[in-house]
Amino acid sequence: MKIHYECFACAANQCQKIVEMATDNLQLRKKGVIEASKLMASIDENSIPAIFGSEVFLGVYRAVGNDDPFKEYKEISNRLAEEIVKDFEDVDLRSSLKLAIIGNVVDFAVGYSPEKLESDVKEMMKEELQVNDSDELFEQLSLAKTLLYLTDNCGEIYFDLLFLRKIREAFPGLKIYIAAKEGPIINDATVEDLKRAGFGEIGNVISTGARVVGVPFELTSEEFRKVFEGADVIIAKGQGNFETLSERKDKRVFYLLKAKCRPIARELGVPQGALLCIRSQ
Amino acid sequence: MKIHYECFACAANQCQKIVEMATDNLQLRKKGVIEASKLMASIDENSIPAIFGSEVFLGVYRAVGNDDPFKEYKEISNRLAEEIVKDFEDVDLRSSLKLAIIGNVVDFAVGYSPEKLESDVKEMMKEELQVNDSDELFEQLSLAKTLLYLTDNCGEIYFDLLFLRKIREAFPGLKIYIAAKEGPIINDATVEDLKRAGFGEIGNVISTGARVVGVPFELTSEEFRKVFEGADVIIAKGQGNFETLSERKDKRVFYLLKAKCRPIARELGVPQGALLCIRSQ
Repeated sequence: MKIHYECFACAANQCQKIVEMATDNLQLRKKGVIEASKLMASIDENSIPAIFGSEVFLGVYRAVGNDDPFKEYKEISNRLAEEIVKDFEDVDLRSSLKLAIIGNVVDFAVGYSPEKLESDVKEMMKEELQVNDSDELFEQLSLAKTLLYLTDNCGEIYFDLLFLRKIREAFPGLKIYIAAKEGPIINDATVEDLKRAGFGEIGNVISTGARVVGVPFELTSEEFRKVFEGADVIIAKGQGNFETLSERKDKRVFYLLKAKCRPIARELGVPQGALLCIRSQ
Repeated sequence: MKIHYECFACAANQCQKIVEMATDNLQLRKKGVIEASKLMASIDENSIPAIFGSEVFLGVYRAVGNDDPFKEYKEISNRLAEEIVKDFEDVDLRSSLKLAIIGNVVDFAVGYSPEKLESDVKEMMKEELQVNDSDELFEQLSLAKTLLYLTDNCGEIYFDLLFLRKIREAFPGLKIYIAAKEGPIINDATVEDLKRAGFGEIGNVISTGARVVGVPFELTSEEFRKVFEGADVIIAKGQGNFETLSERKDKRVFYLLKAKCRPIARELGVPQGALLCIRSQ
């Protein structure tokens, strides 16, 4: 997905939140946003939000001298989500898919406060999915030998873990790869986060090879691309994975996400806020 | 006033609102924000928000092919303010000063919706000024031969007109100049707006010579600078005039404004939202 007009101001607002999380020093915050203003000049009409955003954000991290401003935000998200998911351990496969989509609400980019998670999860469980290709997903999983699961944010990963446990029970022969980011980038889960959460019991935890939101092909590792090419089904969580994969039109990919921002909702032709399980066309 | 760290994202958000007001065409909106991203790369730690903002905004106007995206916003602001001010024609000089400060609430830059004006004015009339140098202002006016009044936004100018009528009654010997912008820039009043509102009955309506928010000295006309140098008292309305004048530390200047954003409040050491009549130090 190429940038929409709203992506510029959204990235600028994220830069402001980043410098606020990174330091209390006003001069350093100013240095951070001035660096952002230089880096954001590189955007053009073909820029992909997840990729140009990550480049800008990492530049801001360097300018303010903080390599992981989201450390605390991610820890809180993980702790709260781990607790909440305990109440859902006995759900069925379909409910765990819905929970995995709902877990995508934890997103710094849209200013989400993880403290709201418990009440939000309960509320969203009452909603229907606006697009629901889960029958196709489960059919494909029943035929598949390997699944690649692309994670998104911290917190959300505990909902993914529950869904993956249910997948493993339902499709015991499936070989499962679970991918996360190579290093900290906003509130995305890293390989370390997956290992700590226990994904190693489910399958092979791998890195995209990139410290970038989503799956920026030209920046991923050869190892990752080999797993990607060899997978029969790919589950891609969240907006960043959608942004970087949508133009490949790869029918192996199922997007599980909440359409949190206007550009994503416009691109998918759904109302903003919709919960979605969509097979790539 | 030099930029604070919040000014970058604020300018980006204003650019988004500008393209939304300027056109319904999504491609053109995208072109506008991409142009903004290039122009905003020129900011540095010494940039003055009103000046770099105006440069960026005019570039966006050109990119989207709309020379005055605020035409309707300004017309609505003027019409509503003119009606509201009619209810206050019999107030005294001090109340008219307070109303002139309250009128400064009409401000696109902070996302103000002019439809709220009537109820907001009534509410704010109950507030006290947080800094009130009006005794000094009136003393200086009683000694002055010439007053230069720097206007700010459309809508607000009808509150200025009331205040200036009361000034003329109280200080009948005073020569009064009223300045506005040379051409349309966001929702600032232009010379044409002042003439249409009837400022010609009060004094000499003059242009700053610049199509820029505030009073950017190096960009103003020689004629304007002559009036500025010769004035005994200068009343400067709003944030843009404060931003461009504050570093001159000119004791002839009295700032009348509402501290609408965090940087201005921080710079002045007052709570955000404060109503202020402050003599320049």
